[in-house]
Amino acid sequence: MRAPTPAQSFTEQERRAVYKAIHTRRDVRDQFLPDPIPNDVVLRLLDAAHHAPSVGFMQPWNFIIIRDPETRERVWRAFESANDEAAAMFHGERQSLYRSLKLEGIRKAPLNICVTCDRTRDGDVGLGRTHNANMDLYSTVCAVQNIWLAARAEGLAVGWVSILSQEQLKEDLDIPDHIQPVAYLCVGHTEAFYSKPMLESAGWAQRLPVEKLIYYNKWQGTPTDFKVQLSDPTKND
Amino acid sequence: MRAPTPAQSFTEQERRAVYKAIHTRRDVRDQFLPDPIPNDVVLRLLDAAHHAPSVGFMQPWNFIIIRDPETRERVWRAFESANDEAAAMFHGERQSLYRSLKLEGIRKAPLNICVTCDRTRDGDVGLGRTHNANMDLYSTVCAVQNIWLAARAEGLAVGWVSILSQEQLKEDLDIPDHIQPVAYLCVGHTEAFYSKPMLESAGWAQRLPVEKLIYYNKWQGTPTDFKVQLSDPTKND
Repeated sequence: MRAPTPAQSFTEQERRAVYKAIHTRRDVRDQFLPDPIPNDVVLRLLDAAHHAPSVGFMQPWNFIIIRDPETRERVWRAFESANDEAAAMFHGERQSLYRSLKLEGIRKAPLNICVTCDRTRDGDVGLGRTHNANMDLYSTVCAVQNIWLAARAEGLAVGWVSILSQEQLKEDLDIPDHIQPVAYLCVGHTEAFYSKPMLESAGWAQRLPVEKLIYYNKWQGTPTDFKVQLSDPTKND
Repeated sequence: MRAPTPAQSFTEQERRAVYKAIHTRRDVRDQFLPDPIPNDVVLRLLDAAHHAPSVGFMQPWNFIIIRDPETRERVWRAFESANDEAAAMFHGERQSLYRSLKLEGIRKAPLNICVTCDRTRDGDVGLGRTHNANMDLYSTVCAVQNIWLAARAEGLAVGWVSILSQEQLKEDLDIPDHIQPVAYLCVGHTEAFYSKPMLESAGWAQRLPVEKLIYYNKWQGTPTDFKVQLSDPTKND
């Protein structure tokens, strides 16, 4: 058993490293290199996921590591089908723009990880799930974000593919009924992490100013004593 | 606009710092100190949240910063009521243990943050939400996990209070119908980050061995070429 870690034990450099991972993390779609990822690195990512917070210490996650090309091909076909359906929901220029976007790296990335949630792992009544049944899904998402940030620190890119039929994915990966897939991730090396999200560069959406998203004490409450002035914690200034 | 960040640009020390945040993060319940948190630190946490991945670059989150003691008292009363209901769902020794647990720091922590999700922010059709409508909630959870890890790097403790009636919370914070509260967080300084999750120390649940949670290519698929052997990336060995 490790000794308790004293509070405030991060050095300035360590603090900046955490913000660097957060601010330079990207959702990488198809800029993957074929270089394989060693098993020990994969395990570090999954152990990072396993140290996410979980409601009632439920640890509801499983991780399906997918390297097999045939399986990835099957999932890719399911993406193609879902993406065609999705494209049809947009119209005019928006549809053309949608169709021009690269939204997945399922076959290009050497590693896919499906992160699932076992909704029954806490038995009949789950601590912390009595008033919000979705907390197990939320815990699983925290595990996904840990993978993403750990991967960034390892120099690895991650892309989350959400344009998949959940039922088809369960069929393709033999996932039983009581298990819910939460994230399908593509993981691999990349040539560069871009400075902006791809959808921002492509003109799909712009980053909102963070100060517009902050309220004080209640919805739309005014920040009376709160000046919004951000310094960049990743810069050595 | 920043220049592209080259891949694999984390030093060994930076990499370890990211894992240190992930592995030493704790869900802190009531071990908060009253010391206030400066505004610039709060803003760094919220800017970290704002740099989470979001489906279709939707950025569906808002952040309600709650310092007002009356508001925190009101939310605490709602917790007390929900927690009584929750305790009644457990039986025997499990109920006694449940009642002995400290599960919130709403009044003790100097800062509460309610993180919400605007489910309408992407208009009629959302990129990446066509086949999984929950992706906006998941994006918001990624923002929560960024806050948690950034806070750890700042030497601040965070606790997620999930034992709250969502309808009561919306009423208490004037949150409109189309906005969904995702997380209610207590944030503050603490004396120490413990080496284990509180629910593990209290005997509520044990940590599962990560190797039991990993499958290969499909559900319950065997890891044929995969030896599970973890080295601790936070140790300088």
